[in-house]
Amino acid sequence: MTDSPKPASLGHRLMARLDEAARHSRPGPGVTRLFCSDEHRAVLAPIADWMRQAGLSPELDASGNLVGRNERARRGERTLIMGSHQDTVVEGGKYDGMLGVALPLQALQALREAGSELPYGVEVVAFGDEEGTRFQSTLIGSRALAGTFDPASLAARDADGTTLGEALEAFGGKPQEIPRLARRPASVIGFVEVHIEQGPVLERRDHAVGVVTALTGIERHRLVVRGKAGHAGTTPMPGRRDALVGAAAMVGEADRILNATQDLVGVVGKLEVRPNAVNVIPAEVHFTLELRSPDAAVRERGREQIIGACRRLARARGLELRDERTYQAEAVACADWLVEALESACRACDEPAERLFSGAGHDGLAMHDLTDIGMLFVRCRDGLSHHPDEAISVADAERATRVLMRFLVDLGATVRAGGPA
Amino acid sequence: MTDSPKPASLGHRLMARLDEAARHSRPGPGVTRLFCSDEHRAVLAPIADWMRQAGLSPELDASGNLVGRNERARRGERTLIMGSHQDTVVEGGKYDGMLGVALPLQALQALREAGSELPYGVEVVAFGDEEGTRFQSTLIGSRALAGTFDPASLAARDADGTTLGEALEAFGGKPQEIPRLARRPASVIGFVEVHIEQGPVLERRDHAVGVVTALTGIERHRLVVRGKAGHAGTTPMPGRRDALVGAAAMVGEADRILNATQDLVGVVGKLEVRPNAVNVIPAEVHFTLELRSPDAAVRERGREQIIGACRRLARARGLELRDERTYQAEAVACADWLVEALESACRACDEPAERLFSGAGHDGLAMHDLTDIGMLFVRCRDGLSHHPDEAISVADAERATRVLMRFLVDLGATVRAGGPA
Repeated sequence: MTDSPKPASLGHRLMARLDEAARHSRPGPGVTRLFCSDEHRAVLAPIADWMRQAGLSPELDASGNLVGRNERARRGERTLIMGSHQDTVVEGGKYDGMLGVALPLQALQALREAGSELPYGVEVVAFGDEEGTRFQSTLIGSRALAGTFDPASLAARDADGTTLGEALEAFGGKPQEIPRLARRPASVIGFVEVHIEQGPVLERRDHAVGVVTALTGIERHRLVVRGKAGHAGTTPMPGRRDALVGAAAMVGEADRILNATQDLVGVVGKLEVRPNAVNVIPAEVHFTLELRSPDAAVRERGREQIIGACRRLARARGLELRDERTYQAEAVACADWLVEALESACRACDEPAERLFSGAGHDGLAMHDLTDIGMLFVRCRDGLSHHPDEAISVADAERATRVLMRFLVDLGATVRAGGPA
Repeated sequence: MTDSPKPASLGHRLMARLDEAARHSRPGPGVTRLFCSDEHRAVLAPIADWMRQAGLSPELDASGNLVGRNERARRGERTLIMGSHQDTVVEGGKYDGMLGVALPLQALQALREAGSELPYGVEVVAFGDEEGTRFQSTLIGSRALAGTFDPASLAARDADGTTLGEALEAFGGKPQEIPRLARRPASVIGFVEVHIEQGPVLERRDHAVGVVTALTGIERHRLVVRGKAGHAGTTPMPGRRDALVGAAAMVGEADRILNATQDLVGVVGKLEVRPNAVNVIPAEVHFTLELRSPDAAVRERGREQIIGACRRLARARGLELRDERTYQAEAVACADWLVEALESACRACDEPAERLFSGAGHDGLAMHDLTDIGMLFVRCRDGLSHHPDEAISVADAERATRVLMRFLVDLGATVRAGGPA
């Protein structure tokens, strides 16, 4: 007895598309697809094809985004923007970015195949550059739409000395016309991005999806601990001013405080010793401290506790400590109505979706300057991202697609009823 | 009323010679005089001149040592060898090495001027290479005399690609004849080296000189702590396996144990983090651990305590730890009779000279394979060495010279009485 073959499930179809996109990669482990590269050009063909199947007209914009619009969007009706980035880190995975392009297109196609027409403009964007791998300059495409593009970033150079402006021009973009891409806020309903979680929270909760409340605020510091070099054989232990012994105590204290504080994460990710010789007492240690929290007050209190502890440790050991803040980006909140609409769609699909915050930055950071943002996270295996082993399950791909379909349909009802406000 | 000018003191004359030698240096701060360099060639002229004034005949040997012998030594009588190295680290000081050449020559000259004749062979050597700055290969000259020269070291290359063999040949040495420099142990009374302490012990004791009991034993380890990389924003604090947090605890514990252990010093001098990025949880930390003690049992116990503590810390944090011993050199003891003879000379000069051990390696490490060794340390300012600010006082230069003169005279009495055994 044989079954007649069933049509592939939504989840399987989505996974097949993500596998197809992943083939457009530099050789090597995982996926490496940089902004304005040959692989970027090559991946546009399948994405444009998915857009057409979803009822959208694809177009490469001046900043290197591939933008697909339905007819209502092209006519100028108020439009929901969805999407994520096509680019990856070096030796990244198949899902970070591309899931947020492929999943909405799959959802739109399924709705279309079911004969369901959405009563609002829809646009799906495959942003050219979010990771910043090639030019160290990030969110070019989403800033273009938000009207916050900085022309100075066109001068950024890649490792070969090519500027972003040159690369974009060769790719078919039009650097001079990027400012014209800025959308009118009144024309946009909101921006919704689907993304892998890149962390283990959903896995620990055993939830397929989660609704994001905020993109975390970030601050980064460079600390310099200065002691006194000395011959490691001839300088007695008492009285040494070993910069590494001091810095090690600071790393330990930072970790202790971070573990004791709710809604705060952080890391000493980079640390360098001078002169860094096997037989010389370390004279100087440079290290970075990064802190992230969705709540600015929590982040500030954490920073004061940690830097204060470092100062006390330095004083106690006769070391000098300098601290310089090198970066700060405030947290960005997702719009309440989008959080609630996504939660409601989860409930309707029997998904136990709890709220969580995003510890990573996303295109939403830039889009927030234009419009309300919302994000749906999808569970990823071991919380892993930026790695060839990045993975999601077929079942989760299907469940997340169904949640987004429900969200799109319910938004139609809201729009028909005259909202969202 | 005017005084007629007094003849310069021994201390002033010695300091003037050390200043003269220091002029033969590469341009830049401090003294930089590498093995077989133009500066090495240039400094041989004043040293040869001091040798002649001390009654010794200078000669450049096949390994690049400048060797001065008195007549008894040239006739084959049993000979006391003194000396130290002419070379320096990059941007080193005036005293590390050169003091041990100039001081014995000053002492011999003063004895000669006073009409005192020593009843044994005397030889003063300005070793070509102890620091190993140019070829990373050290103790060439003293190994040549000890008969432990390894011809393989002739293939070592400097930063320009010149081999040690080529450099030595161009300098006037004869690489092929180095093995013939080996002395017969029976022809040597002992080897005595005067050196700056390179540490703060004498300064803390307020002593001008100290008698060395042993050159410290050294062991070096490379430790690798392996954890798990992760996105620093999206990975919650609990459950992280941060290799740097683990390594920091190990550095702290090593320092605690070292401070609590008598006759043991050590350092984590080199530490490197991977991937060393501001926003990535450290996956791997490589660090070195160096331990020194004049007592092998103390060093071994210290090593077991420290590595044991590191293992426990790694286990508690789910980290992997690998430990590899990369270097080991056993301590070398100074001969009791030379320690006692130097102490007795100190007492005779009213110098409160206590014993101490040398935390650094010296030419004596090689000479110990040939003969009994003894070392006299001279106080240096702030315990500083390998630095342009390296300094000793005129008074200490004088006091140390008088101690060595007394030692040489007393050794004459011993030799006349048929000793040392």
